[in-house]
Amino acid sequence: MSKHYSGRFITFEGGEGAGKSTNIQFCADWLSARGQEVLLTREPGGTPIAELIRSRLLKANHSESMDPLAELLLMFAARAQHVNRVIRPALQSGCWVLCDRFTDSTIAYQGFGRGLDLEQIATLKNMTHGDLAPDRTFLLDTPVEVGMARARGRGAALGEETDRFEREQLAFFERVREGFQALAATNPHFVTIDATQSLDLVQSRLQSELERLLAS
Amino acid sequence: MSKHYSGRFITFEGGEGAGKSTNIQFCADWLSARGQEVLLTREPGGTPIAELIRSRLLKANHSESMDPLAELLLMFAARAQHVNRVIRPALQSGCWVLCDRFTDSTIAYQGFGRGLDLEQIATLKNMTHGDLAPDRTFLLDTPVEVGMARARGRGAALGEETDRFEREQLAFFERVREGFQALAATNPHFVTIDATQSLDLVQSRLQSELERLLAS
Ligand SMILES: Nc1ncnc2c1ncn2[C@@H]1O[C@H](COP(=O)(O)OP(=O)(O)OP(=O)(O)O)[C@@H](O)[C@H]1O
Ligand SMILES: Nc1ncnc2c1ncn2[C@@H]1O[C@H](COP(=O)(O)OP(=O)(O)OP(=O)(O)O)[C@@H](O)[C@H]1O
Ligand SMILES: [Mg+2]
Ligand SMILES: [Mg+2]
Repeated sequence: MSKHYSGRFITFEGGEGAGKSTNIQFCADWLSARGQEVLLTREPGGTPIAELIRSRLLKANHSESMDPLAELLLMFAARAQHVNRVIRPALQSGCWVLCDRFTDSTIAYQGFGRGLDLEQIATLKNMTHGDLAPDRTFLLDTPVEVGMARARGRGAALGEETDRFEREQLAFFERVREGFQALAATNPHFVTIDATQSLDLVQSRLQSELERLLAS
Repeated sequence: MSKHYSGRFITFEGGEGAGKSTNIQFCADWLSARGQEVLLTREPGGTPIAELIRSRLLKANHSESMDPLAELLLMFAARAQHVNRVIRPALQSGCWVLCDRFTDSTIAYQGFGRGLDLEQIATLKNMTHGDLAPDRTFLLDTPVEVGMARARGRGAALGEETDRFEREQLAFFERVREGFQALAATNPHFVTIDATQSLDLVQSRLQSELERLLAS
């Protein structure tokens, strides 16, 4: 917990197309309009070095395949830089830090989705920010097909003709979703929001959560 | 230990200018001449992705300072890629793998030199290659001034006029040397070689160690 900071640390989690980027901007604007200092950031990334790790290593096409443990260590290297150079200083100066994805995405994607050892991820999490957890995590939850269709910018769910690769992707994202739901069930700072609702409904829920945080 | 491999894994350690690169080439040539398959590699690096981590992240000048934990995680990300994509496959195919620096350099430089938590480094080592240790590590040991003078390409040791930054560097490299010596004292696969001796003497010692390894 970040009780020793005056700022608040809020993370936004969920699958592709759930509405994280849309709603983190809504929350940043809402808090700014109420006179709060807000830092909107994202993972992997959020500092020049961490963005370099994202663009040159994690998202790049390489002439060899990336070892899964190497990828996990790169993710946490970017996170160590982000936490120690950006997130902690901002919280210490009293900012609200809103972060688009954080360690729970690593647990859901690499752990639940790809099957990497959850203990190993927990060890790296503890090493990197054992003393810093989000004050609130908004999990924007949608069925996989809804998020995928939104992310692809089309309104229809996948039909019967979905090919094998897409079905494998679907199974992967289903495990990711179940990972997020398992995290939400066991971590009281999670707030799960049904993101199949209209944006208006999602955002009025977010607004009432922010009002509660502002008052506390 | 790599007892389940038919190849041998040999690492070369020591401070700057101790003669690692000179002598690893000597050993590679000596083994090749005796019909052995040899892979000469180095750390950080040894694969396209690991060399990218070295050149674009570890050795680059950034617009922000690198967090020490981020640097340590990057070092082990490069190592995971190198171990899993290059070193293990080479050992499995029966190669001798000769590596210019390995995890002991991380322990000596980041741990003993810079004061990072040795337990944390041990945890990452165990995560990355808990089941793979060098069969032999040659520690080329010299007083710090000798190695620094060699690396700078000048014959004289540092004089009285050495400025504060150089004295700090000297103290740092002294801790690194003590780190290597502590590792050698507690790990029976280390062979410490007095690298102030002539190259001829150093290499006849290496040759007799290689003969023993070839025969065993
Ligand atoms: N509740 C909602 N109802 C309808 N459309 C929505 C809703 N939330 C988001 N969208 C739309 O879905 C699309 C994806 O939203 P957004 O980019 O915010 O998702 P995301 O979670 O950030 O996705 P990614 O993981 O790909 O970054 C956008 O076009 C957005 O306007
Ligand atoms: N035993 C020796 N006696 C004299 N000169 C030596 C000896 N060993 C190495 N040298 C010389 O010292 C210089 C540095 O050697 P080398 O590059 O092999 O060291 P290194 O340990 O690889 O250094 P670095 O850590 O900077 O890579 C070279 O010019 C080399 O020829
Ligand atoms: Mg987004
Ligand atoms: Mg060298």
